Amino acid sequence: MGLGLIVQKYGGTSVRDAERVMNVARRVTDAYKKGNNVVVVVSAQGDTTDDLIEKAMEINDHPSKREMDVLLSTGEQISIALLAMAIEKLGFPVVSMTGWQAGFMTNSTYGAARIHEIKTSRIENELDKRRIVIVAGFQGLNKYEDIVTLGRGGSDTSAVALAAALNADICEIYTDVDGVYTADPRFVKSARKLDEISYDEMLELASLGANVLHNRSVELAKKYNVKLAVKSSLNNNEGTYVKEVDQVEKMLVRGVTRDNDCARIALCGVEDTPGKAFQIFSLLSKNGIGVDLIIQSIGNGKNKDISFTTTEGDLEKALEVLNDNVSVINAEEIKWTKDVSKVSIVGAGMVNNVGVASKMFEALYNEHININMIATSEIKISVLVDKKDAERAVVAIHDKFFDR
Amino acid sequence: MGLGLIVQKYGGTSVRDAERVMNVARRVTDAYKKGNNVVVVVSAQGDTTDDLIEKAMEINDHPSKREMDVLLSTGEQISIALLAMAIEKLGFPVVSMTGWQAGFMTNSTYGAARIHEIKTSRIENELDKRRIVIVAGFQGLNKYEDIVTLGRGGSDTSAVALAAALNADICEIYTDVDGVYTADPRFVKSARKLDEISYDEMLELASLGANVLHNRSVELAKKYNVKLAVKSSLNNNEGTYVKEVDQVEKMLVRGVTRDNDCARIALCGVEDTPGKAFQIFSLLSKNGIGVDLIIQSIGNGKNKDISFTTTEGDLEKALEVLNDNVSVINAEEIKWTKDVSKVSIVGAGMVNNVGVASKMFEALYNEHININMIATSEIKISVLVDKKDAERAVVAIHDKFFDR
Repeated sequence: MGLGLIVQKYGGTSVRDAERVMNVARRVTDAYKKGNNVVVVVSAQGDTTDDLIEKAMEINDHPSKREMDVLLSTGEQISIALLAMAIEKLGFPVVSMTGWQAGFMTNSTYGAARIHEIKTSRIENELDKRRIVIVAGFQGLNKYEDIVTLGRGGSDTSAVALAAALNADICEIYTDVDGVYTADPRFVKSARKLDEISYDEMLELASLGANVLHNRSVELAKKYNVKLAVKSSLNNNEGTYVKEVDQVEKMLVRGVTRDNDCARIALCGVEDTPGKAFQIFSLLSKNGIGVDLIIQSIGNGKNKDISFTTTEGDLEKALEVLNDNVSVINAEEIKWTKDVSKVSIVGAGMVNNVGVASKMFEALYNEHININMIATSEIKISVLVDKKDAERAVVAIHDKFFDR
Repeated sequence: MGLGLIVQKYGGTSVRDAERVMNVARRVTDAYKKGNNVVVVVSAQGDTTDDLIEKAMEINDHPSKREMDVLLSTGEQISIALLAMAIEKLGFPVVSMTGWQAGFMTNSTYGAARIHEIKTSRIENELDKRRIVIVAGFQGLNKYEDIVTLGRGGSDTSAVALAAALNADICEIYTDVDGVYTADPRFVKSARKLDEISYDEMLELASLGANVLHNRSVELAKKYNVKLAVKSSLNNNEGTYVKEVDQVEKMLVRGVTRDNDCARIALCGVEDTPGKAFQIFSLLSKNGIGVDLIIQSIGNGKNKDISFTTTEGDLEKALEVLNDNVSVINAEEIKWTKDVSKVSIVGAGMVNNVGVASKMFEALYNEHININMIATSEIKISVLVDKKDAERAVVAIHDKFFDR
């Protein structure tokens, strides 16, 4: 690529020890040497955040979120200083900035703040002096001038927001995988790395448990049209570009994913009256329980069955809420299981192709895998299968679509 | 004491683990419960600073001071969050502040910044709400909005400066000793804790190696007339007050100290011409070598001997500088030894009492301890003795003055 402004983001595993920090410093300075301006967003080293949380828990198992943010933000501050020192060691001009120094202004939600604005003048001044700028991810400053953290996926979000604010040519997300694959390469041998993928497809893949990028950062990239590249910090492979992809270039199916963090609840013999589903799901929503797939059997005018999935973590709470409201739900029986997984195919091309779903089901049929539930969206088809069958299902579907 | 504003300072050993942090939290809230407003300055936990330095050294053995300050300031930030969480656990209103949040504005000397001003409005707002305020010691913000650290003794200095700026009733320095003693209680069994001591006496004791308070903080306390209390964080003993003491209350001798970090250099047979001493000591000073005691024999118009002491660490460099400038110094012989210690008595009362020096010398004579050099100031008499005799010298002098 030509000269321009690059925002790079390195996660905790990429800077977990001195050797890795030096490795990142070499990557950063390689980009700089080519004439680019480089801004680097970095996470806390390896287990630092967990260690800090443990320190807090020894003292107070319910600390205020404000003080937790003061504590946790030190993790990224340590990283920026160490990476800046590594770049100094290589002989390049560099300056580190905490979230507040870099101008990250947020709302006041401690522990899960949203970025309102990035005041980029300080970063821009340093770039004008041809300095490499190292920015602490995951953190900002709220209107009370308190340090806040951005919550899960925070450093990815910091990097994308910064790339948008600086109008960067590209935002490179370095991680410990090579890019985005058509399926999990750990158990699908024929999985291929994608050269590119659209924002929407990436969003579906991320929410399906392909832990490469956090959804929040992809949403932000889509909103501001920030071109993303997902690359490995451990090799020089090309990685995957996430961007607005022309329809004509789109593959039919982009990838196959599995999500094991599923639990299914079935409400059998619910009264078949209008508003029943609304009552049930607003009850769950009010209690903070996320619901994913929902299926309702066709009622017979008297009774119907309603099934839905949630995460394993929410299962207990969901059952509690349902049992506490027996009179509202009035089901004949409540069944549940954790032995289910969601297997999905994602691809913007499938919306115009009627054959995709049947091809997926055929792959499962050939493997004698039973389908519990089915749900479809514009760019995604998900099926719920028994947990023990999930890996086999992914391989079968992947081979059907990609191994020709 | 009555209701008022108390600034407390806790060092690294006082907060080194969860148990100690809870212990400090109880002390802080005890003071608060009595109706006082309480501001607490805290250092980095135990070995945190050393661990961070080690992390840096693994990457770059000559990092910039700016980045070192970004790194090291995280140590105190971790402490303030943990102490605030401990106080929350006890159910009291509390808020933590980094150096920049607490308004510590400094000059721009990274690694050894001086406090210019403390903008106390944020702290005062929190105190008005009857919150306990926890402040990160050792750090501030310079005009470039960079984080800086205050260098050695920094947290003591933070506490005293804050007490001055807030016009606090007292600044309590908690440490792992009970207070200031007449001699080192580890080897002088009859050593007594002092109830009070003047700023000047404390300054002399501090510079003589009684590592209770850093000189910078005592100088600041003297300048702004901040009443200090040196106390143990591990018991409820009274401690020692450092303040302006009326002359009439003054003890003749306040304490006896020993400094083993001494080396003596003797320049024998130096030409007895005007300006010789100036030439020698400006040469040493230019090369950053600190000189303590200086003795010059009475010249015979042709030759004289000049002896001085320096620290063990500076000895080699001093000899190098002297040997590199043989033509300037033109001494017949340069002798040196590390086997010397400085033993001193300190007390504002001695200036008006001619008997003090002879009493000190008598104590040494009775123990057959030879005196190598003698130096006196208004409130201090120091003698250089052989290192092997130093401990015995302290005990003998202490017994002479205190054990009656």
